[in-house]
Amino acid sequence: MAGTVVRGITRADRDVTDTFAELGVATAHEAQGRTGLLAPYLNPIYAGASISGTAVTVSVPPGDNWMIHVAVEQCAEGDILVVAPTSRCDDGYFGELLATALAAHGVRGLVIEAGCRDVRELTRMGFPVWSRCVSAAGTVKETLGDVNLPLVCGGQLITPGDVIVADDDGVVVVPRLSAPAVLEASRARAAKEEASRQRYAAGEVSLDVSSMRERLAEKGLRYMDAS
Amino acid sequence: MAGTVVRGITRADRDVTDTFAELGVATAHEAQGRTGLLAPYLNPIYAGASISGTAVTVSVPPGDNWMIHVAVEQCAEGDILVVAPTSRCDDGYFGELLATALAAHGVRGLVIEAGCRDVRELTRMGFPVWSRCVSAAGTVKETLGDVNLPLVCGGQLITPGDVIVADDDGVVVVPRLSAPAVLEASRARAAKEEASRQRYAAGEVSLDVSSMRERLAEKGLRYMDAS
Amino acid sequence: MAGTVVRGITRADRDVTDTFAELGVATAHEAQGRTGLLAPYLNPIYAGASISGTAVTVSVPPGDNWMIHVAVEQCAEGDILVVAPTSRCDDGYFGELLATALAAHGVRGLVIEAGCRDVRELTRMGFPVWSRCVSAAGTVKETLGDVNLPLVCGGQLITPGDVIVADDDGVVVVPRLSAPAVLEASRARAAKEEASRQRYAAGEVSLDVSSMRERLAEKGLRYMDAS
Amino acid sequence: MAGTVVRGITRADRDVTDTFAELGVATAHEAQGRTGLLAPYLNPIYAGASISGTAVTVSVPPGDNWMIHVAVEQCAEGDILVVAPTSRCDDGYFGELLATALAAHGVRGLVIEAGCRDVRELTRMGFPVWSRCVSAAGTVKETLGDVNLPLVCGGQLITPGDVIVADDDGVVVVPRLSAPAVLEASRARAAKEEASRQRYAAGEVSLDVSSMRERLAEKGLRYMDAS
Amino acid sequence: MAGTVVRGITRADRDVTDTFAELGVATAHEAQGRTGLLAPYLNPIYAGASISGTAVTVSVPPGDNWMIHVAVEQCAEGDILVVAPTSRCDDGYFGELLATALAAHGVRGLVIEAGCRDVRELTRMGFPVWSRCVSAAGTVKETLGDVNLPLVCGGQLITPGDVIVADDDGVVVVPRLSAPAVLEASRARAAKEEASRQRYAAGEVSLDVSSMRERLAEKGLRYMDAS
Amino acid sequence: MAGTVVRGITRADRDVTDTFAELGVATAHEAQGRTGLLAPYLNPIYAGASISGTAVTVSVPPGDNWMIHVAVEQCAEGDILVVAPTSRCDDGYFGELLATALAAHGVRGLVIEAGCRDVRELTRMGFPVWSRCVSAAGTVKETLGDVNLPLVCGGQLITPGDVIVADDDGVVVVPRLSAPAVLEASRARAAKEEASRQRYAAGEVSLDVSSMRERLAEKGLRYMDAS
Repeated sequence: MAGTVVRGITRADRDVTDTFAELGVATAHEAQGRTGLLAPYLNPIYAGASISGTAVTVSVPPGDNWMIHVAVEQCAEGDILVVAPTSRCDDGYFGELLATALAAHGVRGLVIEAGCRDVRELTRMGFPVWSRCVSAAGTVKETLGDVNLPLVCGGQLITPGDVIVADDDGVVVVPRLSAPAVLEASRARAAKEEASRQRYAAGEVSLDVSSMRERLAEKGLRYMDAS
Repeated sequence: MAGTVVRGITRADRDVTDTFAELGVATAHEAQGRTGLLAPYLNPIYAGASISGTAVTVSVPPGDNWMIHVAVEQCAEGDILVVAPTSRCDDGYFGELLATALAAHGVRGLVIEAGCRDVRELTRMGFPVWSRCVSAAGTVKETLGDVNLPLVCGGQLITPGDVIVADDDGVVVVPRLSAPAVLEASRARAAKEEASRQRYAAGEVSLDVSSMRERLAEKGLRYMDAS
Repeated sequence: MAGTVVRGITRADRDVTDTFAELGVATAHEAQGRTGLLAPYLNPIYAGASISGTAVTVSVPPGDNWMIHVAVEQCAEGDILVVAPTSRCDDGYFGELLATALAAHGVRGLVIEAGCRDVRELTRMGFPVWSRCVSAAGTVKETLGDVNLPLVCGGQLITPGDVIVADDDGVVVVPRLSAPAVLEASRARAAKEEASRQRYAAGEVSLDVSSMRERLAEKGLRYMDAS
Repeated sequence: MAGTVVRGITRADRDVTDTFAELGVATAHEAQGRTGLLAPYLNPIYAGASISGTAVTVSVPPGDNWMIHVAVEQCAEGDILVVAPTSRCDDGYFGELLATALAAHGVRGLVIEAGCRDVRELTRMGFPVWSRCVSAAGTVKETLGDVNLPLVCGGQLITPGDVIVADDDGVVVVPRLSAPAVLEASRARAAKEEASRQRYAAGEVSLDVSSMRERLAEKGLRYMDAS
Repeated sequence: MAGTVVRGITRADRDVTDTFAELGVATAHEAQGRTGLLAPYLNPIYAGASISGTAVTVSVPPGDNWMIHVAVEQCAEGDILVVAPTSRCDDGYFGELLATALAAHGVRGLVIEAGCRDVRELTRMGFPVWSRCVSAAGTVKETLGDVNLPLVCGGQLITPGDVIVADDDGVVVVPRLSAPAVLEASRARAAKEEASRQRYAAGEVSLDVSSMRERLAEKGLRYMDAS
Repeated sequence: MAGTVVRGITRADRDVTDTFAELGVATAHEAQGRTGLLAPYLNPIYAGASISGTAVTVSVPPGDNWMIHVAVEQCAEGDILVVAPTSRCDDGYFGELLATALAAHGVRGLVIEAGCRDVRELTRMGFPVWSRCVSAAGTVKETLGDVNLPLVCGGQLITPGDVIVADDDGVVVVPRLSAPAVLEASRARAAKEEASRQRYAAGEVSLDVSSMRERLAEKGLRYMDAS
């Protein structure tokens, strides 16, 4: 039965967590072996936000946002709230009042596999949200869910305290324990990409930069001229 | 059989109607008992528009926008055109020419459960549209529909003359006769939210502000510490 | 079997091709008899881009972007890359590194019936993309596809060298051989619309401007007054 | 505010209502001027059922089926229950226990814009359901809705007491007051179709049977031989 | 401009065409290099049908089935009608009357990227249809389309006279000229699969039957025991 | 990096596992507090199958079914294969040859968040599959995935060895360790439902059987007579 709130979760290291924002979602996803990416139907409500933080998770019934209210006081500076309904729901679970409360507790943003409202006010506040849709549909406060139990959001398992990275490309989760290694791999990847970028900008092609021609030929690639 | 145009509809009071824009979609939806919200797949073509007005309704066949042309002269200052196809259609029924004509008649915007085109020009004109999608697909002018009969748009019944409110959060309909009462309730709600906002900004949580703790405990909410 | 790269395709005339950008997608689509429009689920990753160019086509397996790398050196100044997976895939086949390489070869943008990533960087670079979704999901380089064979993208047949026009309203293909005639028809349509626009702005309605009233009456349109 | 149950609704005449089942959905929809058809995402859970009856309507919150329980005793012999959630929900609001209760009250089937479960048992019982999906997801009993107020289901306005017709082709609503006229028109259409069927079976084509050739030519239809 | 009917198309050889039905969609698709498969949203209206035939193509406007009537007399024994709307439409373009007419001309079935109605009657007649959805929504007869021009249906280019194969797994197109070679390859594949089937039934695994272990190891596959 | 096969997983007790099939998905889902239900887009390819078994999990890349081949020899009598792609894919990963191999190892069925083919043969074999869609689209064997690591399928976390129950209502997972308790609760629920069923069949309503009237009145339910 739902109705559990776990207090005092262990969070990923703050320094590690905070560095992911500048590296971005695509790099973190690639650096951990192309894993952890939430489904692409979770989109930012405004362009340009880029955050990383530690997950506080909330499981909610369809059309009922009570547990988000319960979750606020479990949040700490540097957290990102991750909310998933127990079955598909597009309702507007979240708006500027909850954002005001979360921001006062240091929360950096919200990832929700449901709807969000007050888009204009959230944009003005600079409180970023990644949601399934925008909807003003109101919710009730009748049924319990859970705070800080592991949950599935956007097709990925999120354990409280994991690192969440979100930007214009979507959302990725990095498990707490592997975060330092993924951070290091992300930096290595970013450095390598910078080198490639310069060669590409100079007109070189990846077939040469990454030595793909031989393997393509082995696979049977054939060139022909247009008639 | 389709093919009716109703002239001289009774519109909601102008003062009441116009005040809704600043209160917004979410507030009006909540204030009328969480009713009247159109489906969240109706999205604004550009961010930041916020309008309210009286509904002129147009029922159109799939792929045929003739009746929108018929509807133009039935519009008056302060109206919002509401268009729904008789079966799902994504075509671009509407573009800048029709917007120019509507704007010349004082129409404030369009809600259409279909496609819209000329997004750049509409944005430049400041003529807001809430649509199912953006599509340049052209339409024909062969088959009749109806103007100013009640219709269903985005899953809601819209009666001509009702109040339509639309902003970044979507679209809501407020029935003409209940509009004054809903306006009053909306203002009360906005005032109450302002009070809550200040307490949340100061770090209070809704569990206390709204006295939820006792009822949560009765429902069985249990707190436990992470191991 | 896949694995063909066609070199030296014949492209639509540059002057004809380049003029389409200012005329726009809706006009070109209408001017060629309401044909050629790609499906409305292909959306621009940022607003305001408007391009035209010649198609270089790439057919890719699901989750494998190898052939986009192969395609880069087949591109020339003024091309637009058109990519379609052999079955539905939302992965992020394309990002800023490939964009850097394509831009260095004079490519003006990308149309892809799949996902795209690095949205912020692509926006900053001014490299426009029309895609099915935004997704950071990484892809492999294991399986061949084809470059510059005809393919279906967004429900339309695209032959290499065809004209592609893309703006905020979506994407349209104009076959290479008919491009000059479509261009002429597009200009005629734009001129005619300008005349209509002025009459609409002055308050005239299309029922009169386009003499629709008689035919509407023949179809049985009937006016009645609200009771 | 939700929470109303209307008793003693006026139902369409029983003889008229019951005759629609054999005429079927497509015929009734055509006979009333191609109106009243519910959206095609409402599908039967098993093939071959064909019913007509009078609507008892239930508006339910997302994830909450309490009001269906409330509705049972408002049902009478020959009714069809029509259920719509106030926002999109795929949960399994309905199963064999409720079907047993409804069947005991003479209800002939269910139309629900949400999920349904116990498909095997419902099939065995011969209690047909047209639903958005099949889902075992359980629902709560916490929040009120309405019984026998007009509602929108599948994009159509349903007034309690209207005629509902449902078969393998979907669901159509026929307003109570127009039901006798629609029945007569349906019979006329069925008779006319029988005549056409025989001519088609003999190899005649509708171009001749319905004299379409001249009008097609006027529209510009042109025949050419394959080269 | 639409409005062309091409007569006297060249059809794939009858013997070759008719043999595909027993080989099935999956085998033909694989045998031609995993190409030609129509999108999986085209589903049979009843289970168990398996047909092959030559394509007669019909391009129709949204909500307008006039051209299907035009197409009937262009059909010959052994054809399959392939219909695609110029933009997405779910209407019920096709029912038992048209099926009666087509069957009288020897047509074996219909593939339509839109809706179909009269499911019960079509099932009884044994006239199979693969459609996007079932819908009773009626259509008009006002606007021209084309018969026997190449079109895109379910994401594949269909040229009139091509081989269409359809069964419970969906629909595949085999181009007319390559049909004999694909037929031969299909038979070879079916024979090879029969051999594998017997080994699998005896408990062997494909890792051995197809000698995959070495290549898996090279790719880095590693086995570990559950702790 | 993907590429792990875990051998010798611990499976839920066979007696407990096998008993779930007769209790069914809805009962198991309710009995474990309305948890564990996979998304309703996973549907059976034929009606009437009802199975329970222990999960063997396979994570596969989009368009690549190699790891299903790897998984076969990890299966044992009484298992159910659970397959999820790392990003959305509708391809036909699975058909009768793999089913033959799995059946020879005692596997009872397949749950796959992707496509399945050879529907007719699988139906004939009596090898049930719950899939996202039916598709004949072929897949490659180039990229590794994982066997018997926990994965998310249909929005639920599946740990190898968990109990899977699947029938016409969908699929539910019961965690291995809680399976005995859930079984007991399922039986209790089934017994209770049987008692209710008899009362409902006799015409009683749940408002009385479950004593709901008082609480409904407290919530504000009001009865009114139709005017």
